[in-house]
Amino acid sequence: MQTVFFENRPGILATGTIVGRAEKSGPLGKHFPVWFEDDKFGEKTFELCERKMLHNAITQALEHAGLESEDIDIVLSGDLMNQLISSNYAVRGLDCAFAGVYGACSTMAETLLFGGILTDGGHFRNAVCCTASHFASVERLFRFPLELGTQRTPTCQWTVTGAGALVVSRDRAGSAKGEKKPVLTCGTFGKVVDYGVTDANNMGAAMAPAARDTILAHLKERGVEADYYDMILTGDLGYLGSSILNDLMNEKSCPIDKIHSDCGMLIYEQVHDCRGGSGAGCSASVLSSYIWQQLRKGKLNRVLFVATGALLSTVSVQQKDSIPCIAHAVAIENL
Amino acid sequence: MQTVFFENRPGILATGTIVGRAEKSGPLGKHFPVWFEDDKFGEKTFELCERKMLHNAITQALEHAGLESEDIDIVLSGDLMNQLISSNYAVRGLDCAFAGVYGACSTMAETLLFGGILTDGGHFRNAVCCTASHFASVERLFRFPLELGTQRTPTCQWTVTGAGALVVSRDRAGSAKGEKKPVLTCGTFGKVVDYGVTDANNMGAAMAPAARDTILAHLKERGVEADYYDMILTGDLGYLGSSILNDLMNEKSCPIDKIHSDCGMLIYEQVHDCRGGSGAGCSASVLSSYIWQQLRKGKLNRVLFVATGALLSTVSVQQKDSIPCIAHAVAIENL
Repeated sequence: MQTVFFENRPGILATGTIVGRAEKSGPLGKHFPVWFEDDKFGEKTFELCERKMLHNAITQALEHAGLESEDIDIVLSGDLMNQLISSNYAVRGLDCAFAGVYGACSTMAETLLFGGILTDGGHFRNAVCCTASHFASVERLFRFPLELGTQRTPTCQWTVTGAGALVVSRDRAGSAKGEKKPVLTCGTFGKVVDYGVTDANNMGAAMAPAARDTILAHLKERGVEADYYDMILTGDLGYLGSSILNDLMNEKSCPIDKIHSDCGMLIYEQVHDCRGGSGAGCSASVLSSYIWQQLRKGKLNRVLFVATGALLSTVSVQQKDSIPCIAHAVAIENL
Repeated sequence: MQTVFFENRPGILATGTIVGRAEKSGPLGKHFPVWFEDDKFGEKTFELCERKMLHNAITQALEHAGLESEDIDIVLSGDLMNQLISSNYAVRGLDCAFAGVYGACSTMAETLLFGGILTDGGHFRNAVCCTASHFASVERLFRFPLELGTQRTPTCQWTVTGAGALVVSRDRAGSAKGEKKPVLTCGTFGKVVDYGVTDANNMGAAMAPAARDTILAHLKERGVEADYYDMILTGDLGYLGSSILNDLMNEKSCPIDKIHSDCGMLIYEQVHDCRGGSGAGCSASVLSSYIWQQLRKGKLNRVLFVATGALLSTVSVQQKDSIPCIAHAVAIENL
């Protein structure tokens, strides 16, 4: 059994989102009220910018929920930097407990799963679930520093510069304007799936089998058909990976093309050197802004959020290992 | 509130431990039945060795619990390698869900907290909680490759080559030989604490304040005095850090010197270039072997396990940041 059921239906109280210039000028631009113009948000390094974004998203989420940091029992966060430094430093000033989790670009779903479990089981009242990524800090960590001007491969995706935070609570969101009150109903932890892909510039292809594995496990264990959901929203498969996922689902006679969306496709248009967005901040910023707004308005009512992660490092690539991947899923619904 | 209470008292069913040669020849040697002689456990690289140790510890724990991998709902693991590659690759062949968590050397306690919550809340039946570290892989990642022959500083600790795994379950351990059945009763998530230490070769000093913060929060929120416990067992403060912790506790009129032990002091004797053990595998291997055996025999009945972690990375050190630290605590008791 990989699926956990939240009997007490923890609510999502509010969210916070911040993005960079490229994301603001993309198709979802109007859904990102908070953004910054320069590459570093006024900081000296890309890494300092990343942690500042994360702190900003957390602060926004608390403000929107009408909470202070002392109302928060725990912050659950992770990021792509080595040893999760963006998360560790972002929460340093906050007076609440912290737990670091890591699932690469699936981190947003993993934090929501743990946030759901902690509040559903009655262990805690309020948890902030969040993550962030920055295009330039990830490029220099996993690929090449931007200064080299390296040509991009035809399959590569762009790491989103952005952060997202959601407040998960035993309580429900308010609805002064007749808005819906989205809750977490259940979720599925992924297994590590490795189809032998070794190209670190083709993450979508590496991650698609993990997404299929988790979606199929979720539907089976919950006992519903795919069309139970208004939307199955993958994290950052991008244009290529999403197309592979649809083929893989068809193979299993479980087509999802009519209800499938991907955060990496929503946030960037496809151009010759960008096959969609990626990075932990991709699914975090799209879920906490556009998707959250659609849920609140009732335009979406049953979303299965399936964030995917490639669990490699530069060392594992250099030592010629293939790329193990994982997808964690969480169901967000208006009841 | 940082403390979670486990009303259903999840049991620890069994453990698995493996260590290297230095640990086998240390003071706890006779408590480590499984060990290896060469530096790499027959593998080509230190990193491959680390993941093999972790896989070995998991396999042992399952065997001792009489379980197959399909009986396990989830493996909770993390490690010091960038992007947690040891954990990601160690579970690749296991047919169960996985969640990566990261708390540096506090990871063992963090996985136990999540394992406790998942089984206590009824979400899952069995979870494997584990972590590992390797002296040589950590030295080259965080400090200097061994090949350089760099002189060690007077405050430095030695990263333990070892792995530990514990099976946490809704069920209780068997007791064919009249052994006790240790359970998790409660635990406390730490806050990020940073006293401005910048010396990455003096981890014990950096982490001691975090240990104090979590111990005091735990005792207050649980409403017990320190001497409620037979043992307050810190993870890897080592000889220097433990002495600092005792001073810090005395300052708060809460002396713990009579009941305090430290895994980093238990595993290595103090010599001129080693102020005790460190690394995620330090507390994991000591808890899952010697301490577990003492609990099973009833020689210890109430242990507060407080693993400490330094949440730095090479990038944060190079960018002149101080070292944020955290300590997570979990109470393991015979009822």
